[in-house]
Amino acid sequence: MDKELPQGAGETFRNSHPPSIPADGRHRYTLRIYYEDTDAGGIVYHANYLRYAERARTEALRAMGIPHADMVGQFNVMFVVRRIEVDYQRPARLDESLTVVTESVAVGGASLVLRQDVRGTMGSCAALTVRLACVRPGDNKPGRIPPRWRATLNAMRDASSTAKSCDHDEG
Amino acid sequence: MDKELPQGAGETFRNSHPPSIPADGRHRYTLRIYYEDTDAGGIVYHANYLRYAERARTEALRAMGIPHADMVGQFNVMFVVRRIEVDYQRPARLDESLTVVTESVAVGGASLVLRQDVRGTMGSCAALTVRLACVRPGDNKPGRIPPRWRATLNAMRDASSTAKSCDHDEG
Amino acid sequence: MDKELPQGAGETFRNSHPPSIPADGRHRYTLRIYYEDTDAGGIVYHANYLRYAERARTEALRAMGIPHADMVGQFNVMFVVRRIEVDYQRPARLDESLTVVTESVAVGGASLVLRQDVRGTMGSCAALTVRLACVRPGDNKPGRIPPRWRATLNAMRDASSTAKSCDHDEG
Amino acid sequence: MDKELPQGAGETFRNSHPPSIPADGRHRYTLRIYYEDTDAGGIVYHANYLRYAERARTEALRAMGIPHADMVGQFNVMFVVRRIEVDYQRPARLDESLTVVTESVAVGGASLVLRQDVRGTMGSCAALTVRLACVRPGDNKPGRIPPRWRATLNAMRDASSTAKSCDHDEG
Repeated sequence: MDKELPQGAGETFRNSHPPSIPADGRHRYTLRIYYEDTDAGGIVYHANYLRYAERARTEALRAMGIPHADMVGQFNVMFVVRRIEVDYQRPARLDESLTVVTESVAVGGASLVLRQDVRGTMGSCAALTVRLACVRPGDNKPGRIPPRWRATLNAMRDASSTAKSCDHDEG
Repeated sequence: MDKELPQGAGETFRNSHPPSIPADGRHRYTLRIYYEDTDAGGIVYHANYLRYAERARTEALRAMGIPHADMVGQFNVMFVVRRIEVDYQRPARLDESLTVVTESVAVGGASLVLRQDVRGTMGSCAALTVRLACVRPGDNKPGRIPPRWRATLNAMRDASSTAKSCDHDEG
Repeated sequence: MDKELPQGAGETFRNSHPPSIPADGRHRYTLRIYYEDTDAGGIVYHANYLRYAERARTEALRAMGIPHADMVGQFNVMFVVRRIEVDYQRPARLDESLTVVTESVAVGGASLVLRQDVRGTMGSCAALTVRLACVRPGDNKPGRIPPRWRATLNAMRDASSTAKSCDHDEG
Repeated sequence: MDKELPQGAGETFRNSHPPSIPADGRHRYTLRIYYEDTDAGGIVYHANYLRYAERARTEALRAMGIPHADMVGQFNVMFVVRRIEVDYQRPARLDESLTVVTESVAVGGASLVLRQDVRGTMGSCAALTVRLACVRPGDNKPGRIPPRWRATLNAMRDASSTAKSCDHDEG
């Protein structure tokens, strides 16, 4: 029922590169900064970058055909945050438009590491490394990432590491 | 198990004035303003007064022996917000200490109207009138406020309206 | 430099109906509900509707060619919230898409009343009436709404009241 | 004018152990979880631990006689967050009372590393390592931590590392 889910995302999965994965393996989510996001220092309140990163993860998973409602409904598992490292690089300000670039960097049987870069018009504002665990909602015990999704996450990781080596070649 | 629940709050209820109701019927909850509360205008973000009002309602109910966990657990009802009117009177700023003064102004069979005044050192910052409905969590249908609690809320309303008429006499 | 500002929004203003005002005078802003928006009741936390309403006001003003940075920069005035009434009608849930419909209902020399309806897929979730004052940032004293913007806000109000009378005719 | 600032905190500093530093070098800040803190998973939203950690840092600095208003007012410097690592260990729930234990672990000329443990009744919920930079508000360039405060932060670090070695001896 989700209008934003790419049509046939599941069906096209037989191809190694489902269309729902960006060519460079990097999902992009754009948001704007409103008053609610800022603090008396005139900049985005530092904890809010974690909120933007989660919005972006939600949309990245949805774009890959893994909306979290399906994870729970079909497979009785969900991702929970286990660890976050965040480096603050440049403050973002009111009215600024930010893009969260999400990459898959490591995919395990029941865990996932993402790299998320929150970029403003003047460069990176905050860079996050996020470790997620796949757990069963009932008892919070580890649960295996369903094979189809693991393959998608691996495809995303491969596409992004290929793109990265090209970045370096060009640099 | 709640250490802040006055001992024997239920038992003492036979008295018309349980000790958990302040003499003037006005519950006071104090909080401090941190960076998270402010916005780029240098003042408290306007939506946050609703958060402070809810913290204060939670503590006011707890102090009266009506912690919301008990409402659900013992009586299978809960309060939900139906309507809020808020007048913004003076901006509050970083590091300021605010006191939310909560009064019961009308108690119905399945509804409750509270008046909540968020006061800073320089006077009132925001004045709220909050209408709550008592509902059953399962289907959100109206549920009667348990008689003991209704009596407590009425006692609070009476104490506060008495205090108010004294305020006027003195004024 | 704002890519979302309609090109020539100022220039086209000579027409009574600038293109930046929707035909029915109702601005629409769409957002999605993420985990950060919800509470342990499984629904959107009630104070967050005020945040959505402000995001929508910001975008409505921007679409009308009145970004708040310009208000301060060119005219040394800004809108501040003086009063909000909000009626909660139906809870919104995780992953739901909401549309905030904003209408201008009264335009004074230094004040403005907007009606904002936050709609989900099942109907209205929260209906807000928001009174804004136009003030000078320095001393918070009332400042007149610049004539061009007042005219735009009036045009929006007229378009929406016309649309409303048509709604009734059709009903 | 801050009633919570210990009287004469500055004057007593001539002693190696100012009374404002806890004997074990660990500052404790207690808060309660309200609806606003939770999400649809029924637990505290993960980004909120960063807000609690900041409330605790503010109070820890205030208790040590370093309220941030004074930092800016007297010395024209402020602390900004450069990096946070947070490990999520156990979810906290509605109505739970949490204590943030803050320790100074490294004090540099213009930087500071704190360890902050957010503890619930069942154990640690989240453990944070926070790197702060001391900067000048005007240009965000590094600024030296004023010597008196550096000494206080070092005294806090020493007290806590002594306490820690005692913990181990006892263990």
